[in-house]
Amino acid sequence: MFQTFEASTSPEQGPPRLAALRRVMRDTGLDGFFVPRADAHQGEYVAPSDERLAWLTGFTGSAGFCIALADRAGVFIDGRYRLQVKDQVSDAFAPVPWPETSPQDWLKQALPNGGQVGFDPWLHTPGQISALETALDGTGITLVKTGNLIDAIWPDRPEGPREKISAYPVENAGETADSKRLRIAEVLAQAGQKAAVITLPDSICWLLNIRGTDIVRNPVAQAFCILHADGHVDLFTDASNKGELADHLGGDVTLHAKVDFIQTLPPLTGPVRVDRNSAPQAVADALAQPVWGDDPCILPKARKNAAEIAGARAAHHRDACAMVEFLAWLDEAAPKTTLTEIDIVSRLEGFRRATNALRDISFETIAGSGPNGAIVHYRVTHQTNRTLRDGELLLVDSGGQYEDGTTDITRTIAIGAPGETERACYTRVLQGMIAMSRAQWPAGRDGRELDAIARYPLWQAGLDYDHGTGHGVGAYLSVHEGPQRLARAGTVPLEAGMILSNEPGYYREGAFGIRLENLIVVQPAEMPEGADKRDMLSFETLTFVPFDRRLIAAEMLSASERAWLNGYHQSVADRLQHNISDKARHWLFAATAPI
Amino acid sequence: MFQTFEASTSPEQGPPRLAALRRVMRDTGLDGFFVPRADAHQGEYVAPSDERLAWLTGFTGSAGFCIALADRAGVFIDGRYRLQVKDQVSDAFAPVPWPETSPQDWLKQALPNGGQVGFDPWLHTPGQISALETALDGTGITLVKTGNLIDAIWPDRPEGPREKISAYPVENAGETADSKRLRIAEVLAQAGQKAAVITLPDSICWLLNIRGTDIVRNPVAQAFCILHADGHVDLFTDASNKGELADHLGGDVTLHAKVDFIQTLPPLTGPVRVDRNSAPQAVADALAQPVWGDDPCILPKARKNAAEIAGARAAHHRDACAMVEFLAWLDEAAPKTTLTEIDIVSRLEGFRRATNALRDISFETIAGSGPNGAIVHYRVTHQTNRTLRDGELLLVDSGGQYEDGTTDITRTIAIGAPGETERACYTRVLQGMIAMSRAQWPAGRDGRELDAIARYPLWQAGLDYDHGTGHGVGAYLSVHEGPQRLARAGTVPLEAGMILSNEPGYYREGAFGIRLENLIVVQPAEMPEGADKRDMLSFETLTFVPFDRRLIAAEMLSASERAWLNGYHQSVADRLQHNISDKARHWLFAATAPI
Repeated sequence: MFQTFEASTSPEQGPPRLAALRRVMRDTGLDGFFVPRADAHQGEYVAPSDERLAWLTGFTGSAGFCIALADRAGVFIDGRYRLQVKDQVSDAFAPVPWPETSPQDWLKQALPNGGQVGFDPWLHTPGQISALETALDGTGITLVKTGNLIDAIWPDRPEGPREKISAYPVENAGETADSKRLRIAEVLAQAGQKAAVITLPDSICWLLNIRGTDIVRNPVAQAFCILHADGHVDLFTDASNKGELADHLGGDVTLHAKVDFIQTLPPLTGPVRVDRNSAPQAVADALAQPVWGDDPCILPKARKNAAEIAGARAAHHRDACAMVEFLAWLDEAAPKTTLTEIDIVSRLEGFRRATNALRDISFETIAGSGPNGAIVHYRVTHQTNRTLRDGELLLVDSGGQYEDGTTDITRTIAIGAPGETERACYTRVLQGMIAMSRAQWPAGRDGRELDAIARYPLWQAGLDYDHGTGHGVGAYLSVHEGPQRLARAGTVPLEAGMILSNEPGYYREGAFGIRLENLIVVQPAEMPEGADKRDMLSFETLTFVPFDRRLIAAEMLSASERAWLNGYHQSVADRLQHNISDKARHWLFAATAPI
Repeated sequence: MFQTFEASTSPEQGPPRLAALRRVMRDTGLDGFFVPRADAHQGEYVAPSDERLAWLTGFTGSAGFCIALADRAGVFIDGRYRLQVKDQVSDAFAPVPWPETSPQDWLKQALPNGGQVGFDPWLHTPGQISALETALDGTGITLVKTGNLIDAIWPDRPEGPREKISAYPVENAGETADSKRLRIAEVLAQAGQKAAVITLPDSICWLLNIRGTDIVRNPVAQAFCILHADGHVDLFTDASNKGELADHLGGDVTLHAKVDFIQTLPPLTGPVRVDRNSAPQAVADALAQPVWGDDPCILPKARKNAAEIAGARAAHHRDACAMVEFLAWLDEAAPKTTLTEIDIVSRLEGFRRATNALRDISFETIAGSGPNGAIVHYRVTHQTNRTLRDGELLLVDSGGQYEDGTTDITRTIAIGAPGETERACYTRVLQGMIAMSRAQWPAGRDGRELDAIARYPLWQAGLDYDHGTGHGVGAYLSVHEGPQRLARAGTVPLEAGMILSNEPGYYREGAFGIRLENLIVVQPAEMPEGADKRDMLSFETLTFVPFDRRLIAAEMLSASERAWLNGYHQSVADRLQHNISDKARHWLFAATAPI
């Protein structure tokens, strides 16, 4: 099993660790200290050595931070973690709703007479620091760069990762690393930049056609790199197989130890591009002539090429077969057996492993039954584990990392006969998902402009969900990849090749949660006869797994929604029937019958 | 008649006037000169004395500008005016699609070795100038403040307006001017600002509960004002009835001549708020301590109070009666009589005048038949006038200024039997309009996020329209009012009380145009049972006039769209039947029969 069910934190350890931190703060002359979830690579998953926020507070969410002061400590968490944080942290920490309450507003109130708040410049970006400094201007509160105070009080802090780095086949990547290096270097040269410092592991892995296992769930290596405008790359890594790696990377990539990274920066002459929203402040500080600019790999990586899209289709087909085996098993087992959320997670991982192609799950499977379904990023532990009960909904959000692609799918399943409220809400979520799946739009629109399409059917009933409609997804890389998003924060125009999730939901706290998610890829729209002469884009659906017909109130669907659904289910049956077990095939035909 | 049908420009005068401008440019040592459509108040309509762009180039659109250089002159026009400009300007001017081509890019190409480009600091805002200066940085092109070179070569330039200013009844305004002055002044005091300079006529009229007739279509006075943080106002106006006006305004408003405005600014001590997006550069230059901030009246004015909304309902009811008389007349007359677009405009204005309440039309009526319907801001002249022909569409976009409210309505009418393409397109436009009419959404969303709702049905067929879905509308003020918009540029959250248009369209160049427009006002949503506990907003429809049933492909409508349409038509009949002629009532019942 990749997934474990331990409550990975120790809330009771919070108070003594906070007391220790406060002692170091006092000794260092600081009134406060920032403890972010982030590591130096600003990724969603971090290595055990970087789990400082969880170690201190107990909170294990994928985003957030703590500000520890002498008399209080705030744990800032977004809408996804409002419920989770209550269970994970001790009273010594106060949960702070974020971004509703900004760190500056919280600090101003907590330190009315000003003060010195320390931060580790490896764990914050220049964008974060300068925004915070601007907001704190005139308050008497100043930010002070320090070493990491948590590392100073964490006696058994693990070592950083040194896992092997492997070559990513060009058949999957669709472009050689030489070609990528040269075309991105050309962008730098055109902009008059001598080099770019790249600190995002998925950018580095994409650029060099490599993958790693330094952290769970994301098949990346935690490296740094400098891409020079002549196409040469300096790669800083502690991987244990450097010899092998050097052969793969070729003569234009020079390998260095990670420890040498920071001292390589000051001698770089000329303007050097650095991403103020992803690079550490420490990197910007070390450069003689930093120039702000996006990580130059971000957009090229987001625009998947034909090989990557073909890989995604194959990975989704494989993953769908596993999902259908799982759903068929569940429908048979649920009425006869006592099943818990942990059983669900275990069995589903088992069906994915049975493909013999699973490299990792792409994130911790969310299996929330009944009220747990309303916890948007729920992860079951032995403590929270629930038995599935008749009449409840089960929300299962999961995905796999396969060499040819990364999947992410959510289905919500009725255990026994569902209530009418649940069916009505499910149908509205489905209507939103269908509307987005069918959408086409003139090129140039961004995800912020499309987001409402998925929400409209819920809004009509006075309902909404407090998360984005969709996030970008990588190609055997991070399951959450920017810059493409279907959300209010999605301000980059969508382009052909971008893979996104389409996942509206509805959550009723204490009762149930619904989310339906397919992955989709942006494609040029097929323009019907009589269409305008304009470039339009549309979505190709990548995920083909049935929706639970017991939860669909067919009378709420319009003719075109029903046609889409029946057409989708027909495609599911056509695509999967020859690649699944007899039992699953039997189930599949019933599950995809027209409504 | 308010409207006239002269081709108000003289394209053939363009070349000699441009030659005269170039002589003055040479004499002044300038390589170029900006001639914007704008006046010092940045309004949509300008006084005859400010029609510099039309005088020079012949182009009469409501937005755009010319940059005259020694060897070329570009007329920058947006998507609405692509067709119109071709008919209005001589070959001496090159139409430039804007904002696709920015002035900076055009200038860089035209002046590769740099140069001095003059502008009149009364006609450009600091926002425009600083954006342009930033974009031109390093090009060798500099902007130079000068007097207005057009005024120097325009021999018979009219005098500026000096029309009377009238009091706007508090029953219509819903709040006394004292109350408005004091609450806006409080905002300034809270922000530590000593005063605000206000240059937008509709802000000033709203603030002081006054109206004027200085320019056509907008019932405003072209004044300037300084609102002090103690609530006192200095009003700068050349109105011919200042004595009367002083009585209405009371002791806390001091009247001055307009000529004294600019010299009043430098002595103002302390921070003075000025809107960098609406005030003239000349005003910002004159202030000792300018502080950028929105015109403080803009948002309060946009949030209509109960009296203003009640006024809007009454104005729309009156206007709808006139529209129905017009539509009934048209349906009877069209098959029997030869009708031209000018007949349409004249008769419609006549029906509005017959209400005995029409103060002005709220803009030049657009009556575009056949291919003229595709010219988004078409205004018929004797030269362009067309005879309505069987099988064509007629697009009529019009509105009235009534003391209790401003209306704006578009209907597209079939003349004879319409084609299937036209019906399909009309129905998709209608579906978009219905979807927006029915929309509700969580408070905080802006018009950019809702815009796609009206476009989705068109997008599905590969169609779109190149204008916003809706603009804000004033309360017996400008028919185009900010900041509320249903468009990509609509980045201000919608709030209860904001009046907007809802006007998707579809245009096929050379063939036909379709637009359907109702005004709507943002209201708290009625939350059904089972709804979330969240603040949601919705639209109340203000416009009640039938849609042409002959153009609706009923089989394309979903059940809920059909229900909305039939309910709307029933409301139209219920509301209007007792306030119209027998002939119109007869027509109305047929026009609103369920489909």
